[in-house]
Amino acid sequence: MNFQTELEKKVKEIEGIIQGFLPKEEGFQAAMAKAMNYSMCGGGKRIRPLLLMETCRLFGGEEKLAEPFAAAIEMIHTHSLIHDDLPAIDNDDYRRGRLTTHRVFGEAMGVLGGVALLNYAYETMLQAFALTQKKERVITAMKIMAAKTGLYGMLGGQSVDVENDGKPLDREMLDYIYRHKTSALIEASMMTGAVLAGADEEKTALIQRAAGNIGLAFQIRDDVLDVISTKEELGKPVGSDEKNHKITYVTLYGIEEASKRTEELSKEALDILNGLEQKNEFLCLLVESLVSRRK
Amino acid sequence: MNFQTELEKKVKEIEGIIQGFLPKEEGFQAAMAKAMNYSMCGGGKRIRPLLLMETCRLFGGEEKLAEPFAAAIEMIHTHSLIHDDLPAIDNDDYRRGRLTTHRVFGEAMGVLGGVALLNYAYETMLQAFALTQKKERVITAMKIMAAKTGLYGMLGGQSVDVENDGKPLDREMLDYIYRHKTSALIEASMMTGAVLAGADEEKTALIQRAAGNIGLAFQIRDDVLDVISTKEELGKPVGSDEKNHKITYVTLYGIEEASKRTEELSKEALDILNGLEQKNEFLCLLVESLVSRRK
Repeated sequence: MNFQTELEKKVKEIEGIIQGFLPKEEGFQAAMAKAMNYSMCGGGKRIRPLLLMETCRLFGGEEKLAEPFAAAIEMIHTHSLIHDDLPAIDNDDYRRGRLTTHRVFGEAMGVLGGVALLNYAYETMLQAFALTQKKERVITAMKIMAAKTGLYGMLGGQSVDVENDGKPLDREMLDYIYRHKTSALIEASMMTGAVLAGADEEKTALIQRAAGNIGLAFQIRDDVLDVISTKEELGKPVGSDEKNHKITYVTLYGIEEASKRTEELSKEALDILNGLEQKNEFLCLLVESLVSRRK
Repeated sequence: MNFQTELEKKVKEIEGIIQGFLPKEEGFQAAMAKAMNYSMCGGGKRIRPLLLMETCRLFGGEEKLAEPFAAAIEMIHTHSLIHDDLPAIDNDDYRRGRLTTHRVFGEAMGVLGGVALLNYAYETMLQAFALTQKKERVITAMKIMAAKTGLYGMLGGQSVDVENDGKPLDREMLDYIYRHKTSALIEASMMTGAVLAGADEEKTALIQRAAGNIGLAFQIRDDVLDVISTKEELGKPVGSDEKNHKITYVTLYGIEEASKRTEELSKEALDILNGLEQKNEFLCLLVESLVSRRK
């Protein structure tokens, strides 16, 4: 398998799925739909929908049923980016080389459009009930998505991150932030893919552990790249963590220890995936590429 | 029936239901839970949960099943108030005599805590699946809540309101804003109560029409009170619409016409309710009190 070719094909497929679920830009509320679509079409890596679809495939699930969830997880992720960029939080003018949502549509629309995107994720997931007789799978998948998004998931992690901005962080708290702010949605992606494909509780718990490791490794890799990469490679300024006096895995543990940790975490995740009777080679290659990425 | 005594009893009951669903203030994310609970315990009128529970009773539904939805609709409503008060939108320091959420917990928490409350509404509604074998009712109720909250409901209405702030509004657009910003959640309350109690599509459509009228009448009454009431009665400054050059039903139609419209709308809503074979005297009195209120 040529991983890069395959990856491009699959990302294109995800783009098609996402397009199919985006709202129409019409009626009085057209401007809000525009703000939602602008942020959804900003050229992200689509990691979460990819992981969701591939975990569904790993367990031999129906792809059609996973599609609304693949679109929904990207909406949830994107909503969090819109809000992260707001003046009240990170105050960023650019993301991936484009003006941020609130810089184009105004700050009020940044707040409301972000929320509307989160709500639209729920509207989208609810469409899945019409696609299957197995309502329990959809119910369980929605419960996972809601829990991993909310107070005890990503949003909880974000709140602790924001609250402790500029304060000294110990390892336990940094771990909490990473495991919630980043890992929670990676867990939601893979667990939802598994549940929709009919994986039992035991298998879903294994997938949760693998996904937790992948999310953590992904975030630590981010910290490492901020130090070892170049602006050209990364497509954004490097050294921003040091400049912002941000406490990261690298500042707490050093670059060598941090790199070692990503390798351990990714090995553990791959061991779990390789230990399953079901196989998905592409999923394993995807996981490897995420934790060894150069950008 | 002594309406006031009955109302106080029922509001107290709602307070108990809401308390039962609020998150615990513990763990790393305790501050976010505190912000959510602070805003939920600010002493609102609890109109939406009241309408939801009473419409459920009208159709002889199980109250236990309606309770998570009653809590959820108040969470959705409250989340919208937190965001409305943000500097980027209305920039209000006080609501009901208390500091607004972002003034107590900071602007970042105002954004994120508001979102967390919306998400918690979904987590809460999803709990209802465990309470009944009639999964279809919960699915339909959740679809209504999501649609009435989002781009095509309240949030869409808010976005048009924000976008047109300070611009001339025609009647069609003002109608759109009122029917979405305010009526949509009133419709969601009553429709959800009906659906959870097993009302069929025809009955639910009638309830939607009644609720739409109630919501619109409620909002127009707000405009009228801003002109005819006193600060003492209303508990907040009057004449604020005129001061802010805000276009309202009163500025477009005049106070007499606006008052007449609330009467017509409320009469039509009550005619629908009285025309049903099912009866709920308290619900009718509640509707009357909402559109003839002095504060």
